[in-house]
Amino acid sequence: VGLMDVDFHGPNTLKMLGLEGEKMVTRQEKLIPLKYSENLQVVSISSLLDDSDTAVIWRGPLKIGVIRQFITDVRWDPCDVLIIDSPPGTGDEPLTVAQTIPDAKGIIVTTPQEVSILDVRKSITFCRQVNMTIAGIVENMSGFTCPHCGKNIDLFSSGGGEKAARELNLPFLGALPFDPQIVIAGDKGKPVPLQDPDGPSGKAFRSVVETLLQA
Amino acid sequence: VGLMDVDFHGPNTLKMLGLEGEKMVTRQEKLIPLKYSENLQVVSISSLLDDSDTAVIWRGPLKIGVIRQFITDVRWDPCDVLIIDSPPGTGDEPLTVAQTIPDAKGIIVTTPQEVSILDVRKSITFCRQVNMTIAGIVENMSGFTCPHCGKNIDLFSSGGGEKAARELNLPFLGALPFDPQIVIAGDKGKPVPLQDPDGPSGKAFRSVVETLLQA
Repeated sequence: VGLMDVDFHGPNTLKMLGLEGEKMVTRQEKLIPLKYSENLQVVSISSLLDDSDTAVIWRGPLKIGVIRQFITDVRWDPCDVLIIDSPPGTGDEPLTVAQTIPDAKGIIVTTPQEVSILDVRKSITFCRQVNMTIAGIVENMSGFTCPHCGKNIDLFSSGGGEKAARELNLPFLGALPFDPQIVIAGDKGKPVPLQDPDGPSGKAFRSVVETLLQA
Repeated sequence: VGLMDVDFHGPNTLKMLGLEGEKMVTRQEKLIPLKYSENLQVVSISSLLDDSDTAVIWRGPLKIGVIRQFITDVRWDPCDVLIIDSPPGTGDEPLTVAQTIPDAKGIIVTTPQEVSILDVRKSITFCRQVNMTIAGIVENMSGFTCPHCGKNIDLFSSGGGEKAARELNLPFLGALPFDPQIVIAGDKGKPVPLQDPDGPSGKAFRSVVETLLQA
């Protein structure tokens, strides 16, 4: 698996994988991705910046150039799957991906509340206009169980992503619960699906991936 | 007060104010802002789109042009304050605001966890590089009380924004609690500070504004 982080203004992938501060090297004029493990290689702008406070203050055309370079000038080990993590919205980043990789598929991640579903509908219009197949919708931060009393709390309400998938006739890939352990694990650079694969969140992540692979 | 929504890819301001579907009109070649109330006028790209599913698939230069138009070609009633709601990050939108309105001040809104603080530090570097004064940091989704058992739950942990403000020597404007009522109120277009001004969230919003006005 390859993971490419094109959220240039908030590139947090390396921190969340515990690779913060690692630098990519160049070999024969090609960038070598960072290795998280034997099966996961990662490319992110943050591994090319001087320090973690540096802001990427780039206008669109420069971002487009770097995304193209990430695709063509990186010596990826052969990948079954390349995941491209794009910032929210329908701007330069997903547009460049759509135009550079014609058979890319879109995965739309949303929280369940109506205001987010509004953005999802725009993302779907976007995919259709640029002829990108949509692999499906994931509902993130869906529902929550109080760790003290065990009762359910609807933080961002729930079911909005599933309802949108049904209405728009798209595959629903699954729901990921809100889990403060995911926040803590991300801050520590230790992904929950690896730390606690059989916990509720670990299982939910695996279920989304399995649904996606079967699609 | 004027409110300008420059989050073109996810313009949710009108929905959250109950103005969804309202269209701005043009008079003598100037756009007339929508009126939420006698004291709040609003400009958003969503009031110029055909319907709420339409995606704004624009590259940077087009967005820059529209932001400039929102500043120069809108007949704003005289404002004490113009609030410009920008998407996350350090891209074309805040950069255009910084370059078009030289005395604009930045308000940085963050959730408390470390991964977000990483982005805050980038935003601060951004403001300093473009010579924008920083009015302060607001910590959003800070802490949570279970509605069933009344115990505190750290959803995104808490205190990260305040700690960052102290470390970076910036004003801390206050913390807004996570409150499912805010989610529901936003979906319904009925802002919590007006619906329930004396509830915990209403008070927290007012406290942030008061701190900001005293700064």
